[in-house]
Amino acid sequence: MDFKTLIQKKRDGFALTKEEIEYFAFSAADETAKDYHLAAMLMAIFFNSLNEDETLWLTDAMARSGDMADLSGVEGVKGDKHSTGGVGDKTTLIVAPVVASCGVKMAKMSGRGLGHTGGTVDKLEAIPGFRTSLETNEFTDIVNKCGLCVAGQSGKLCPADKKLYGLRDVTATVDNMPLIASSIMSKKLAGGADCIVLDVKCGSGAFMKDKESATELAAKMVEIGKGAGRKIAALITDMDTPLGKNIGNSLEVAEAVETLRGNGPEDLTEVSLLLCAKLLELAGKGTFDECRELAKSKLDDGSALKKLAEMVGLQGGDAQYIYDTDLFPKAEFSRNVIAEETGYISAMNTEGVGSVCVALGAGRKRKEDSIDPSAGIILEKKTGDYVEKGEILAVLYCNDEVFLDEAEKQYRQSLSFSQTKPDTVSLLLGIVE
Amino acid sequence: MDFKTLIQKKRDGFALTKEEIEYFAFSAADETAKDYHLAAMLMAIFFNSLNEDETLWLTDAMARSGDMADLSGVEGVKGDKHSTGGVGDKTTLIVAPVVASCGVKMAKMSGRGLGHTGGTVDKLEAIPGFRTSLETNEFTDIVNKCGLCVAGQSGKLCPADKKLYGLRDVTATVDNMPLIASSIMSKKLAGGADCIVLDVKCGSGAFMKDKESATELAAKMVEIGKGAGRKIAALITDMDTPLGKNIGNSLEVAEAVETLRGNGPEDLTEVSLLLCAKLLELAGKGTFDECRELAKSKLDDGSALKKLAEMVGLQGGDAQYIYDTDLFPKAEFSRNVIAEETGYISAMNTEGVGSVCVALGAGRKRKEDSIDPSAGIILEKKTGDYVEKGEILAVLYCNDEVFLDEAEKQYRQSLSFSQTKPDTVSLLLGIVE
Repeated sequence: MDFKTLIQKKRDGFALTKEEIEYFAFSAADETAKDYHLAAMLMAIFFNSLNEDETLWLTDAMARSGDMADLSGVEGVKGDKHSTGGVGDKTTLIVAPVVASCGVKMAKMSGRGLGHTGGTVDKLEAIPGFRTSLETNEFTDIVNKCGLCVAGQSGKLCPADKKLYGLRDVTATVDNMPLIASSIMSKKLAGGADCIVLDVKCGSGAFMKDKESATELAAKMVEIGKGAGRKIAALITDMDTPLGKNIGNSLEVAEAVETLRGNGPEDLTEVSLLLCAKLLELAGKGTFDECRELAKSKLDDGSALKKLAEMVGLQGGDAQYIYDTDLFPKAEFSRNVIAEETGYISAMNTEGVGSVCVALGAGRKRKEDSIDPSAGIILEKKTGDYVEKGEILAVLYCNDEVFLDEAEKQYRQSLSFSQTKPDTVSLLLGIVE
Repeated sequence: MDFKTLIQKKRDGFALTKEEIEYFAFSAADETAKDYHLAAMLMAIFFNSLNEDETLWLTDAMARSGDMADLSGVEGVKGDKHSTGGVGDKTTLIVAPVVASCGVKMAKMSGRGLGHTGGTVDKLEAIPGFRTSLETNEFTDIVNKCGLCVAGQSGKLCPADKKLYGLRDVTATVDNMPLIASSIMSKKLAGGADCIVLDVKCGSGAFMKDKESATELAAKMVEIGKGAGRKIAALITDMDTPLGKNIGNSLEVAEAVETLRGNGPEDLTEVSLLLCAKLLELAGKGTFDECRELAKSKLDDGSALKKLAEMVGLQGGDAQYIYDTDLFPKAEFSRNVIAEETGYISAMNTEGVGSVCVALGAGRKRKEDSIDPSAGIILEKKTGDYVEKGEILAVLYCNDEVFLDEAEKQYRQSLSFSQTKPDTVSLLLGIVE
């Protein structure tokens, strides 16, 4: 097959065949395609897009381009949950143990954080001893033992996606819905779950800034999942405001634990329960409302928290940190951000808040950056809250004092104030299934 | 400057600044740009094109990306002539000595043939001893001595164009008018002439198959030339039929000599005189009609032929070959293609005829191929001619008998016959100035 002819075909608006799409993906994976071929093809796709068939074929080919998770050793229904990324989004730490407590196996591969959003693997690694790099048999053993395991993505997972994503990132070809959807979904398909719930974040802290694009992405991903024979649904949830109060790795584990105890912030608890309910419904555990009740009961009776502790122990982590989150080392320095005016917080630039967290050491600007598990922010006031001058808006935590002034300045810039109470935004903006 | 931002800007339909265009061209030339950056940018340009300013800036930057011809040592008005390429197009061998005989300096850099079209450098190299690789001072010395020199393009001419053209060729981004025009014109600007006549070929043997696209390309190139302060005009001439009777390197030199003697085929003589007249007019030698007469007189009095012989001698070639073209070695094998039917030749697939020539050894499929100077075709009948069954249509020449059967078959396939005389096509399809 001749790559130039393929590029020309896509350039001229024709659909590619399954064989052509596979050639594209596999030659990206094994590095036989030239970067200039891939870059030109990606830009042609940016302009002429991919149709439903092409998108499914690409996703499937990328999934098969490397190692596929072998869950044949795991008994029962396998579930997976994916978030498109947000600020303070620690729902996996809550949803996974709750769903596992309900009898649906959660054999989950998760990513690390990049840019303004965090990653589950980084959060769990805040627990001393916790290992996310597991061999296949260890992974399935743990799932069979406790119904739950969260591992890092192996280097051999979806190499075609890895190659193409790397090129899209440097050639301004990220912003294409079929490419975004196929990139996410290739990893989900390779992950091997039967039922998948997607949390498509929408708002100032999300990649999708408006409901239209979030809905389009959700629909595209659900279409792919169904095309690949999976049970799948997407919730579109608000990310105009950070989720919960805590941002930063160990801070988020602590907040997830509080939520598993039933004492979490209302928004985080609600979004987590919605995701649990939808995934359990897909797994055949009842109606959505029944599943929500079932999930809630796992918070109330402590079984979900116990499940998380069990998993942490099996993955080499110190489970005591789950029962007593005060054990997490505190950051050396903190700074109270004090309100300079009285009024309502009318909006938060949530991506800006995420960037403050990165600046404090809690996240990565580049893939190779290391992170500080104790750095982060606790939000005392969020959008819609009334604040009196002199009250604490937030507390910033880090281990290098030199970052605090700039972080405080940036944090202040991410807030907008008004004298009238802003409209309440609903947490669930839509469901695509 | 960040290449990704540049790509994104062009991708989103914005015009690039002069500095951005220069960054694009210079980083292509010095290989600091990654191939994937260039490929993505070229595809974005394919879709969103370049405006007039961007095209001129790109052409100028590509011209300045390497060595510029230093014609400061050449006295008087400097002329240049460029053809977009055709089959049997040996007009440079006629136009350059005629114009030089009229007192306009022709310090010309020419290319080699590729694909179905020939190149002037290959044709001249059919003359034993002729050198086209010249140092700058030798080049200008020869121009000053005889008013005329035809050298090969140095490897350092327009490296940005060389890099970008190479990538366009493999990424399906050749077909963009501003990119085609800037590629040609960058070499013309670097060539340093004051007056430039362009011969934009149009028809089945040309890159531009129809008059609309030929006119668009002509207009784009004239616009660039004027923008760069040159006197420039373009003739759009017919290439639905090969020009003249001879195709192949030494065969074309022989036909050019006949034409300089005033005995050339009518079409070749006419197109050559039109190009001479336009270039002489640009150089201030009189009105178009006066210049045509002046050019014609240089054929009639033998001075143009003498000029060509003089140049050949100064460039190390054996000038006797100009006065006696029978000296050129003949190909070992020939094949008469005999008419199998009676009627008019209604059309020739001229690109097909050019490809037959390549198959006979007269041209190159790839840049690195060597060529056979004596191989080629003499056309005994062309479009519009009446042919009796049994008459010779053409004679094929080559040095490896094994090619003849296939070449004859292909040659026959390139001809169409009819029982009615086809309409006469005019040689000059338009003038853009």
